[in-house]
Amino acid sequence: MKNMKQLITLLFIFFFPSSLLADEGMWPLSEIHRLNLPSKGLQIPVDIIYNPKGVSLVDGICNIGGCTGSFVSPSGLILTNHHCAFSAIQEASTEQNNYLENGFLAKTGADEVPARGQTVRITESYRDVSSEVLSVVQPGMEPGARTKAIEKRIKEIVLDTEAKNPGKRAEVAEMFIGKSYVLFIYTYLKDVRLVYAPPRSIGEYGGETDNWNWPRHTGDFSFFRAYVAPDGSPAEYAAANVPYNPRRHLKVSPAGVGDGDLVFILGYPGRTFRHRTAGYLDYEYRVRMPATVEWYGWQIAQMEAAGKTDPAAALKLAPRIKNLSNTFKNYQGKLVGIRRTEMLAAKREEEKRLTGFIQADAGRKAKYGALLEDIGKVYTAIEAASARELLLLFLTRSPDAVHVAFTAYEAAQERQKPDVERESSYMERNWKQTSSRLLLSLRNFHRPVDQSILKELLVRAAKLPPGNRISALDSILKGGEPAAAANSFLNQAYSSTRIHDEKFVEDLLTRKPEELARMDDPFVRLAVALYPEVHAMKDAEKRREGDLNRLYSLYVDVKREFLGGEFIPDANSTLRLTHGHIKGYEPRDAVFMQPITTLSGVVEKHTGEEPFDAPEALIELQRKKDFGPFAPPKLKDVPVAILYDTDTTGGNSGSPVFNARGELVGVNFDRVWEATINDYGWSPAYSRSVAVDIRYVLWVALKLGKAEHLLREMGVKTN
Amino acid sequence: MKNMKQLITLLFIFFFPSSLLADEGMWPLSEIHRLNLPSKGLQIPVDIIYNPKGVSLVDGICNIGGCTGSFVSPSGLILTNHHCAFSAIQEASTEQNNYLENGFLAKTGADEVPARGQTVRITESYRDVSSEVLSVVQPGMEPGARTKAIEKRIKEIVLDTEAKNPGKRAEVAEMFIGKSYVLFIYTYLKDVRLVYAPPRSIGEYGGETDNWNWPRHTGDFSFFRAYVAPDGSPAEYAAANVPYNPRRHLKVSPAGVGDGDLVFILGYPGRTFRHRTAGYLDYEYRVRMPATVEWYGWQIAQMEAAGKTDPAAALKLAPRIKNLSNTFKNYQGKLVGIRRTEMLAAKREEEKRLTGFIQADAGRKAKYGALLEDIGKVYTAIEAASARELLLLFLTRSPDAVHVAFTAYEAAQERQKPDVERESSYMERNWKQTSSRLLLSLRNFHRPVDQSILKELLVRAAKLPPGNRISALDSILKGGEPAAAANSFLNQAYSSTRIHDEKFVEDLLTRKPEELARMDDPFVRLAVALYPEVHAMKDAEKRREGDLNRLYSLYVDVKREFLGGEFIPDANSTLRLTHGHIKGYEPRDAVFMQPITTLSGVVEKHTGEEPFDAPEALIELQRKKDFGPFAPPKLKDVPVAILYDTDTTGGNSGSPVFNARGELVGVNFDRVWEATINDYGWSPAYSRSVAVDIRYVLWVALKLGKAEHLLREMGVKTN
Repeated sequence: MKNMKQLITLLFIFFFPSSLLADEGMWPLSEIHRLNLPSKGLQIPVDIIYNPKGVSLVDGICNIGGCTGSFVSPSGLILTNHHCAFSAIQEASTEQNNYLENGFLAKTGADEVPARGQTVRITESYRDVSSEVLSVVQPGMEPGARTKAIEKRIKEIVLDTEAKNPGKRAEVAEMFIGKSYVLFIYTYLKDVRLVYAPPRSIGEYGGETDNWNWPRHTGDFSFFRAYVAPDGSPAEYAAANVPYNPRRHLKVSPAGVGDGDLVFILGYPGRTFRHRTAGYLDYEYRVRMPATVEWYGWQIAQMEAAGKTDPAAALKLAPRIKNLSNTFKNYQGKLVGIRRTEMLAAKREEEKRLTGFIQADAGRKAKYGALLEDIGKVYTAIEAASARELLLLFLTRSPDAVHVAFTAYEAAQERQKPDVERESSYMERNWKQTSSRLLLSLRNFHRPVDQSILKELLVRAAKLPPGNRISALDSILKGGEPAAAANSFLNQAYSSTRIHDEKFVEDLLTRKPEELARMDDPFVRLAVALYPEVHAMKDAEKRREGDLNRLYSLYVDVKREFLGGEFIPDANSTLRLTHGHIKGYEPRDAVFMQPITTLSGVVEKHTGEEPFDAPEALIELQRKKDFGPFAPPKLKDVPVAILYDTDTTGGNSGSPVFNARGELVGVNFDRVWEATINDYGWSPAYSRSVAVDIRYVLWVALKLGKAEHLLREMGVKTN
Repeated sequence: MKNMKQLITLLFIFFFPSSLLADEGMWPLSEIHRLNLPSKGLQIPVDIIYNPKGVSLVDGICNIGGCTGSFVSPSGLILTNHHCAFSAIQEASTEQNNYLENGFLAKTGADEVPARGQTVRITESYRDVSSEVLSVVQPGMEPGARTKAIEKRIKEIVLDTEAKNPGKRAEVAEMFIGKSYVLFIYTYLKDVRLVYAPPRSIGEYGGETDNWNWPRHTGDFSFFRAYVAPDGSPAEYAAANVPYNPRRHLKVSPAGVGDGDLVFILGYPGRTFRHRTAGYLDYEYRVRMPATVEWYGWQIAQMEAAGKTDPAAALKLAPRIKNLSNTFKNYQGKLVGIRRTEMLAAKREEEKRLTGFIQADAGRKAKYGALLEDIGKVYTAIEAASARELLLLFLTRSPDAVHVAFTAYEAAQERQKPDVERESSYMERNWKQTSSRLLLSLRNFHRPVDQSILKELLVRAAKLPPGNRISALDSILKGGEPAAAANSFLNQAYSSTRIHDEKFVEDLLTRKPEELARMDDPFVRLAVALYPEVHAMKDAEKRREGDLNRLYSLYVDVKREFLGGEFIPDANSTLRLTHGHIKGYEPRDAVFMQPITTLSGVVEKHTGEEPFDAPEALIELQRKKDFGPFAPPKLKDVPVAILYDTDTTGGNSGSPVFNARGELVGVNFDRVWEATINDYGWSPAYSRSVAVDIRYVLWVALKLGKAEHLLREMGVKTN
């Protein structure tokens, strides 16, 4: 197994045409030498960023709770987003010490508060396991069997690696579908402590209203510190632990950046879908996303209406509304972005040319002649099943009562199987998290809303055409008019169920399928009845995945031939670099967004009411123009957020934004609304990401947080 | 009496400090030579704009239904806003020919449709009547008597002038409160015909959503033609009438304007309140506007909720929602604008300096020493009475049932008096309009909403403190819990009343007060009971007005001394010029609005649903880039709306926007939200007005309207 310092180029790339050498791309580190960054303004050698033979900036970053974090001192100080630290801050809060509302500062190391459940992941090494994974694939294999075989093989590699590397955790990432797989080995630091968090009124300033928007005025940052055992090894929290000493820490630059400056970002972007066909995008654009937007919007409206008359309900429903809204707004942005950039037409045009290329050569025609049509057939099948399958999906997810009962029954079924054959969330290594999340969800159970959601789904199910029915529901619906039949079932079911009772659910999670099947709770019974149909749906999905796995592997081959160059894989939560410039944009006719916001803008948005309730102290400091050394002479104000045209997606939260000298100048936390299309393609006009400016981080920490010692620890002057 | 061509400078000005020579000001034409417009880029002599000794651009404009219109051909063709033409277009529409939805084009003169009720007002002459008006004022006069005496004197002058000038209409405008008055004589052309109107989906594109907003994409224009008798005299509609030949018509320039260009506007701005004290602004900011915003917002929410479940109700309530929203949004803009520009602090600072100036001289101190305090006392009195008086005002205006009954009873009372002593709307010359408007309002009567509005007001009235009660309501409310008491009264009242019956109301309007007092309709009885209290409130208002009339007359005197210069009067619907430049603005941190929108922007906003449902033909023309000669090479697109920093207010709708050569390049139709503060003061940062670009007018008329002959009539090339 090769060390981080000896990466193999071939792992990560396939083929990229020179046209892709614009600002587009979430680049595997092994490929960044192709970008010629010095010619674009980079003032340091590329091997300062990434050096397979030594320590580089890459060693200064980590994954913290699904986000990216930066080590900003030799003593394990980590800078990431406030929204990434949210649950840790909440968990650490007590009634007396509400750190979420009031913010938190540890004056000394002894005051740092354990962030229980928070872990820091450091990449130790990785290697290509494509042949090991694909060795289980036989030509002509039934597609569902192909999927299952690959999934099982990956799980075996993971379990085997973890057994051989005690204390480490292994993961296999699919780089190109059905083509290449990489095994990563990670170290997890488990003693993570909260060091500084601004109050929510800064860290979440703008809240849901400003989410996915620009201009932004959110101080979305917090500081943690990672600790290890005195011998340097990862350890659970212990008072005797010592600060972790990272291989490298990043230099924070209070000089910041200005309009037009080069920036680059290191981070762990989650998932993109750029190497898919027009048929895929068409299905997403025309079917899946609109259906999801409609259903989420319907649920949000229900929850908001319920919250209006009942403050207790509003409090309970707030986290669910927030989650739904995030996707709701994201998908709407994608739909608008795809329309505005005419992305679908561009994809179709590209495929037309690819088809011409295939047809032009007898050999290619023989091998790939039916390829695009075959992929198209899979999406046609997906679409044909979508009305029923989306409803089944919503049914097992949206109403808590069904979700809890169904998860319990599915868990009982899955946990009968050998570990490697289970669905990932039911494997031993994930079971604790799956079950505790399920129990946690009960706290926000709200019967009237839950019942209205399930009723709506039953009424919709009644409209499914014959041949596409959900038979488990037909027995509920058979009694005449669907709404009345649903009401009659639901009134009784919600009155008699114990599915919202924590003790009851804890017990369910210990039961065998046959025990559950004998219970008389109405939702457990519904789950048992639904299971064969959901199970059949998942099998169908696996068959379609198996088909696509095989077909997309061919697609990558022919695309390489066609482009006559190499291209980089879709994002898959592995480490990437993206570069670009500080740059405004025109979201719509006659509206130009400037790329830097200011402290005055924070005060300008202040209304005194959430989410625009800036602390009085901040307003006072702004009034007095008490900017410290953090207001550049040209701006005469503290920069708060910056905008740039790099290529990011979810998972880039917390990523360090570097200037041309490789210094940290911002903490990435969002994209603009139109840039939600990054998942499908990068647009020079609309792809803009958002960071909190390091000068605002430092100003808030110093002037409001009185965290002078942290600035000193980072080597930043305070006047 | 002097002719338009022989204006006396002194009529219009008092004193303006040189600091006011920025782009601020709605200038009386007699004063524009002071602006030194050629030094600012004007490429024509100022007397082309206004020439007391000859014909000038001023002769090319008219007032059309409260808006400004421009004569754009020698044959009486008038260009104004679509929103100014709205009711005329609606009135001309039939079920077969819905001109509002489909637009209208008269292919020939014979096809032009009478715009019944629409009149064109042309200013013939004016003269100073200050001494005639103020001759009735005696020193030490009781303030209420002072107000009534001035009002009566003005009505006498008007009636006398109209008697001496048959066919003309007279109006007296107050230039400075209690100080100067000007008598205008107008000709009214009554045969006005609709020539061209775009479909609503262009003329109202963006609707309420975009109202008061930028960027704008509304084709807010329409064409009329004025006709006169064959002898050139004003006449009612007759087939034998001939097109009116204006003294001057304006040249339309398809060359348009670009960013930074000088523009000026001629028009009839309605009302501004700049020469008032900080106490006045404080009352508006702190009391009257927030109370109005709250109450209008409450009503809008009720109406929208009612419309959601009942499409017929939605249709009925739409015009009321539109009216309420307009003020609602306008006042919110003013509140934000006053806060952001710190206008109140600036006013207070100015007054502090004025006070210092008064105190510094014994003579001034003797004359003006108590002035600001005395004005302040009036506003203190207004505020003390405001909770009760605003409620009385809302009560007689918001619920239709009360409004109709009250207006009928007040009319009966007023119409007992001699004509000149009546409130203006009940004078013979206005009675027809007042009564027909009242009857028209019955068409949109909606009982559930009306009842909920009145119930809310009753419940609020129950909370008034002792000493400030509305006694007419106390008898309704005396039966215990207010909401229950109100419900019991309202259920019976709305079930038994005939106040929503047109025949019933027509009969009411013919009755004497004592007849009405004997009727048993519950709302007529309520109106009779309310009348003494409303009457007493209006008397109190007249007393306060009398005080302010005297005090503001002194205020103008001392302000002139203080400023050592002259200043121009507040807008009062008389003809004014304002100048400025095509200019973007920054409404909030990091957001820059560019000053020209485009046809692409129209398509970009298109959703297919009102108010963003552009015609298919427009979308097709844009796709084909069929711009005709109306796309400047730099923009490569048709400009749609333009933004500039002139000083406008309500009444400037339809005003021509001129370029530096005095050519018409736009039709003014709105301000940006922040510029609603223009009523209190002009801000270089926020005061921006909006016009439809003449190139969009011409493009729409030619490419969508096929109105080539109109372009020829205006002397515009079509390719």
